Amino acid sequence: MVDIATRVYNHKWKIDPIVRSLIDTDFYKLLMCQSIFRNKPDTDVTFSLINRTKSIRLADMIDEGELREQLDHIRGLRLARGESTFLRGNTFYGKRQMFRPDFMEWFENLQLPPYHLEKRDGQYELTFEGKWPEVMLWEIPALAVLMELRSRAVMKDLRKFELQVLYARAMTKLWEKVERLRRIDGLKLADFGTRRRHSFLWQDWCVQALIEGLGPAFTGTSNCLIAMHRDIEAIGTNAHELPMVYAALADSDDELRQTPYRVLADWHEEHDGNLRIILPDTFGTAGFLEHAPDWLAGWTGMRIDSGDPAEGAETAIRWWRDRGEDPQRKLIIFSDGLDVPKMEELHTRFAGRVKVSFGWGTLLTNDFRGLMPGDALAPFSLVCKAVAANGRPTVKLSDNPNKAMGPADQIDRYKRVFDVGVQKAEAVLV
Amino acid sequence: MVDIATRVYNHKWKIDPIVRSLIDTDFYKLLMCQSIFRNKPDTDVTFSLINRTKSIRLADMIDEGELREQLDHIRGLRLARGESTFLRGNTFYGKRQMFRPDFMEWFENLQLPPYHLEKRDGQYELTFEGKWPEVMLWEIPALAVLMELRSRAVMKDLRKFELQVLYARAMTKLWEKVERLRRIDGLKLADFGTRRRHSFLWQDWCVQALIEGLGPAFTGTSNCLIAMHRDIEAIGTNAHELPMVYAALADSDDELRQTPYRVLADWHEEHDGNLRIILPDTFGTAGFLEHAPDWLAGWTGMRIDSGDPAEGAETAIRWWRDRGEDPQRKLIIFSDGLDVPKMEELHTRFAGRVKVSFGWGTLLTNDFRGLMPGDALAPFSLVCKAVAANGRPTVKLSDNPNKAMGPADQIDRYKRVFDVGVQKAEAVLV
Repeated sequence: MVDIATRVYNHKWKIDPIVRSLIDTDFYKLLMCQSIFRNKPDTDVTFSLINRTKSIRLADMIDEGELREQLDHIRGLRLARGESTFLRGNTFYGKRQMFRPDFMEWFENLQLPPYHLEKRDGQYELTFEGKWPEVMLWEIPALAVLMELRSRAVMKDLRKFELQVLYARAMTKLWEKVERLRRIDGLKLADFGTRRRHSFLWQDWCVQALIEGLGPAFTGTSNCLIAMHRDIEAIGTNAHELPMVYAALADSDDELRQTPYRVLADWHEEHDGNLRIILPDTFGTAGFLEHAPDWLAGWTGMRIDSGDPAEGAETAIRWWRDRGEDPQRKLIIFSDGLDVPKMEELHTRFAGRVKVSFGWGTLLTNDFRGLMPGDALAPFSLVCKAVAANGRPTVKLSDNPNKAMGPADQIDRYKRVFDVGVQKAEAVLV
Repeated sequence: MVDIATRVYNHKWKIDPIVRSLIDTDFYKLLMCQSIFRNKPDTDVTFSLINRTKSIRLADMIDEGELREQLDHIRGLRLARGESTFLRGNTFYGKRQMFRPDFMEWFENLQLPPYHLEKRDGQYELTFEGKWPEVMLWEIPALAVLMELRSRAVMKDLRKFELQVLYARAMTKLWEKVERLRRIDGLKLADFGTRRRHSFLWQDWCVQALIEGLGPAFTGTSNCLIAMHRDIEAIGTNAHELPMVYAALADSDDELRQTPYRVLADWHEEHDGNLRIILPDTFGTAGFLEHAPDWLAGWTGMRIDSGDPAEGAETAIRWWRDRGEDPQRKLIIFSDGLDVPKMEELHTRFAGRVKVSFGWGTLLTNDFRGLMPGDALAPFSLVCKAVAANGRPTVKLSDNPNKAMGPADQIDRYKRVFDVGVQKAEAVLV
């Protein structure tokens, strides 16, 4: 029996919206947003889409009208009552009322600010300008929209069974990974794949497959909406945008040098326990750790998001030891371009020496490699970053020069200020 | 939106019926049934289930109560008005009114006769006794029920995503076959997989996948219900049960020797064109062809269902040539245990020399090999055959001694009467 009302209702949609909720975003964006809302609410920022995979000419593949419709739809979203209740009432990281009433009231009235869209050289220039707490919430939905419109563009001529077999193959591929991951004793893994997912429904499928397939080894998802729907933990702490924007606001080199610690001092005031995770690589891990204040060594763990992950973890272990901490009580979260072999290797090497956890992103929610002719559905490297704050450009160095961002003169300046030596370049897949 | 009525309705089913229509059966059963209804309506026959794969202990896997419920459900089926209209009004093999009014009237009032079910040595003894036209219609639904109950038994502890991935893998596997088959220029292939299908829904999926994936190279399905639903050709002509029962009725060796030709003489009177397909192997192909009357050489083609298929086809080609016929105008239908490599090989060898066509059965609709631990879903060799007619045992020799059936003394007698020499044994997979 067809439910006639459902069918008619479905045909009334002008578009098939990709992002249907303001909490279809990474949990850490909300945590950071609340922190920014308190500490830097009036900062003007610009976020900008950057496609690092130039060979994928998004503007040639994706209709501008369709892209605008999707972005306009997001601007029409408001926090739903049930979503607000979830954020207000749920326990996150063991803490009730993680989100303060003043923040929630602001969020309930939030409409995302306007966007600016242009085509140039086969790419979209998509930028968002305005107050930091508002603009920063565009990052994840903007990426998700571009990624999914690209998936739709590639699949638009596939017939019914070709599509079904495509997804059957993707499911099989993911399940083979699950079967390998199951053999890792003591595995802890979360979904970090919202931003570069193949599609919303596919991420939701992947999460459900991990719930069944990995059991308690699967610790949750970064996606707030999926965490709510699937009744699992929302995972995430903080990201590069905090030190990047704080740094751009610094008025001198000396002040600049202190910003990474100022960011974490603000965070320290707000959060404890498993939310105290150091992200050390924004301006180079080595210098960051060397000059870090002692109170930072008391934090719970560190997230390794660029550079050679094993080297990063060894550096962290040495640093904790040097500061008189027991690495076995510390958590390392690997989150950079992971797939199963890398996770197996890192787990084998570090389990027992530190607590190990994985934030599995693009190759969880978008591993369609090898499933279409010309590998047309392979994931690619799309980011949406803060590029300016109060009129000054931002910079990110990371531990991989291929991931550096910002004007060349500023990159040089930051390298000097943060005492960054020679870095080893790693290929950026996603 | 959930359609509440649908959900409530689905929960009202006492069982999930496997066979839901009297035309969920092979088309050739209906053609033969009509022929029997005219020529031998009062013959008493016994059909019996035979599991040639003894290692699969069906009675240990399948609950007797569930099996009875399924069989009782089939006994409750009547030809639906739309099914009757389809059979009366549709064009089969280019012919309108293939089914005569007197037969259709009988069929519209048909209830399948009772069954006899016992457990013995971990197997089910399932037999059907009564008038031939009625009893013979049990064959396909009985097999389909046993096959699908076995699938259900194997899968009953699988969780939701394990199940979804199982089917994803099966879909992927079938589609890889489709992609190989597409490369065969001039391919003609039909679904013959009803009797040993994994399940009804899976057969229906496979057929739809072939419609999309193979286009006109896919000529239709033996399954009458699926042919109706999917608006494709119903395919099939005649089977071993005709000569087997005719032979059992013979009162002397001389009469016995003539029965295979008597069967085809009756068929010749009823049908022309593509329905005139010789099935030569019931009592050995060599002797059958050697002693065949000349008018048989005028028939359209031959179906190769046992023995080495290439040898069988060479024998057919030689025989047509010897009888002054042009093999290039003849059709050979391969239908024994086919899978893609064998079809590729046979097509390469015979395309151009004869018209080649494939009836793809179990390895189309039930290739779950390698998809479960212990290969628990691999297809197996279950048949349901006429074992007696008017109190006399039936015999089948075929061109493969592993497929021979009947009492040993009768097999010896038939071998003598039909002049069967040394036969080469071939493994029976399905």
